[in-house]
Amino acid sequence: MNILVINCGSSSLKYQLINMENETVLAKGLAERIGLEGSVLGHRPEGKDKVVIEHPMPDHKTAIKLVLEALTHPEYGVIKDMNEISAVGHRVVHGGEKYASSVLIDEEVLKTLEEVSHLAPLHNPPNLTGIYACKELMPHTPMVAVFDTAFHQTMPKHAYMYALPYELYEKHGIRRYGFHGTSHRYVSKIAADLLGKDIKDCKIITCHLGNGASVAAINGGKSVDTSMGFTPLEGLIMGTRCGDIDPAIVTFLEETENMTSKDVNNLMNKRSGVLGVSGVSSDFRDIEDAAAKGNERAQLALDMFYYRVKKYIGAYAAAMGGVDAIVFTAGLGENSPECRYFVCQGLEFLGVKIDEEKNKVRGKLTEVSTPDSKVKVFLIPTNEELMIARDTKEIVVKLK
Amino acid sequence: MNILVINCGSSSLKYQLINMENETVLAKGLAERIGLEGSVLGHRPEGKDKVVIEHPMPDHKTAIKLVLEALTHPEYGVIKDMNEISAVGHRVVHGGEKYASSVLIDEEVLKTLEEVSHLAPLHNPPNLTGIYACKELMPHTPMVAVFDTAFHQTMPKHAYMYALPYELYEKHGIRRYGFHGTSHRYVSKIAADLLGKDIKDCKIITCHLGNGASVAAINGGKSVDTSMGFTPLEGLIMGTRCGDIDPAIVTFLEETENMTSKDVNNLMNKRSGVLGVSGVSSDFRDIEDAAAKGNERAQLALDMFYYRVKKYIGAYAAAMGGVDAIVFTAGLGENSPECRYFVCQGLEFLGVKIDEEKNKVRGKLTEVSTPDSKVKVFLIPTNEELMIARDTKEIVVKLK
Repeated sequence: MNILVINCGSSSLKYQLINMENETVLAKGLAERIGLEGSVLGHRPEGKDKVVIEHPMPDHKTAIKLVLEALTHPEYGVIKDMNEISAVGHRVVHGGEKYASSVLIDEEVLKTLEEVSHLAPLHNPPNLTGIYACKELMPHTPMVAVFDTAFHQTMPKHAYMYALPYELYEKHGIRRYGFHGTSHRYVSKIAADLLGKDIKDCKIITCHLGNGASVAAINGGKSVDTSMGFTPLEGLIMGTRCGDIDPAIVTFLEETENMTSKDVNNLMNKRSGVLGVSGVSSDFRDIEDAAAKGNERAQLALDMFYYRVKKYIGAYAAAMGGVDAIVFTAGLGENSPECRYFVCQGLEFLGVKIDEEKNKVRGKLTEVSTPDSKVKVFLIPTNEELMIARDTKEIVVKLK
Repeated sequence: MNILVINCGSSSLKYQLINMENETVLAKGLAERIGLEGSVLGHRPEGKDKVVIEHPMPDHKTAIKLVLEALTHPEYGVIKDMNEISAVGHRVVHGGEKYASSVLIDEEVLKTLEEVSHLAPLHNPPNLTGIYACKELMPHTPMVAVFDTAFHQTMPKHAYMYALPYELYEKHGIRRYGFHGTSHRYVSKIAADLLGKDIKDCKIITCHLGNGASVAAINGGKSVDTSMGFTPLEGLIMGTRCGDIDPAIVTFLEETENMTSKDVNNLMNKRSGVLGVSGVSSDFRDIEDAAAKGNERAQLALDMFYYRVKKYIGAYAAAMGGVDAIVFTAGLGENSPECRYFVCQGLEFLGVKIDEEKNKVRGKLTEVSTPDSKVKVFLIPTNEELMIARDTKEIVVKLK
């Protein structure tokens, strides 16, 4: 069984075709600049050379058509025809309060996704566009929606509610949703295996640290709290997002700097984070380089980032009444030994002991704590596409 | 030496006259509805009956005049004349980045306070009004400003900076300042005494839980982090303030509900917190009563409040690399055994063990943890007025 995993952005489309017998990637790629001048598809068939296809892509439907052509191409394709794709798994950012797990896409699901689109106006509309385009081109192939929010729907009410007038929750659904759920779920399962325990008996804190970043508290296999909130802006400091700030700063800026809501939103999402503090870059590698060369604001951005993650680990240990394992994943979490080291420094009182030698590793599943560390610290590479494919498989096999 | 402590609000004035030989209160009181119809002064001389003086108070100068008259009154006064007041200590909310401790008020200090007034537009102007009124009526009495922010000026940069464009810090001073500093300082000193250790060797988390509420991490006697931020809105859930929320909610409300900055600010400061969640009251006693009678939203408000405090305790333990003592103070912290119990529940992994019997206490200095609790938990009644008087004394004795 081959499953095509699709992740649509507003002008991009990422895909992977996964053979579920052995969970290997047959091909993957990225269509960029959809709807813009100079659109291009980069296609990487497993074991063959990468192909770059420059072709106009006025819309997502054209993009998906090109992807399907590439996948079935006599030369650089990996399957004979479209019938070898058993199902499509779509990444959907926001499932609102309705979806606590992945679902087979039918008319009702589409209707609900349209309804919750106002909660993720930048993400859900392109996700939906991708679904509609696939449906047109592959009308008989079952499709599954896998939500970034679903895993966090197990949070208790005292963790997901904000202390705003209750009516705002009822009227607009203003509450914490959390994101990166597929990644937190994936790495927490592996962490439980590494602990050699049933996940029901594990308290795990997962740190998904990339350009977007979030922490989750996972108790007994269920997300009980997470740092992203109503939107992906809250929580950790990110590449260009500020994370937690005093909310009064928003209105202060509007009044003092004469900014509109849109201006401030743009400032908080695009011009803040480690970019805003360092003035160097939103890319942590650039910032680590600049800090190493003595750039004080780059060093400050890193210190602030590490400190915020450390505080969330403490907070979530308190939320769960302890912690058995801390997991680092995603770009920075997997590839920066410094990040893992500085985040864990000072957590010895919790029983955390990093093995500095073992921690000198990038992108490879590793236990980076010492053998006598009470709390295990793991580097676990995330794989959201595989998780989407597994969910899709699980749902479509039941259809038969 | 008698010191008069003054705390001016926009339409109120609280005062205490303290004999510093034995640190006893000679008289205290509250002038209310200054500048409004029906202004009234409630004066409580020690050992005598409370006096209520209904008298027009068009401004703070009139109010202070009435206070001085009451203090020197032949019948209900406690001193013979104004010369028995050696100094005045003024509570000032915001000292900006300039003042890390209390200062003798001179022309330069007044100029600086005018300059930082935009940082606390609701609080600093009435504080200044009170200072100017006192200076007119008691031109030869030394006066000291004691700041809510000063104690937190020791925070390291990675704790007080927000991940916003750095220029906003340079241009507007947008950073974490923290408040309730006088209270956090006062109770942390007592906690160190109770621990029987030099405060330099103590890691203390102080929870000032009243209608306004904040937590501070105090390492070696210095504030290293605190939950209130640029304004007193950030952090814990309060009587009517929301505390931490996703900052994107501010712009969402402006756009969706067509609210102005001022509307949202008002909503977050006056209509949120436990009032907004419960719909019952901003007073925790009312909410505890309603919850006890089965009101679910009142119970939710309490659960959210306790949970947020618990998470901050975990975060600050992580920030300091451990914790020796947790202190509860202010209205709720001193008077609600339930609050202390539920906040500490689940913190056993940190070494916190509440003694349920000893915890059944209100408003009295008590060690409420068990003798074998690794982390000590104290109820310590706060006394900001005494701290202000002590600072004032320390500064004015050096003048002689």
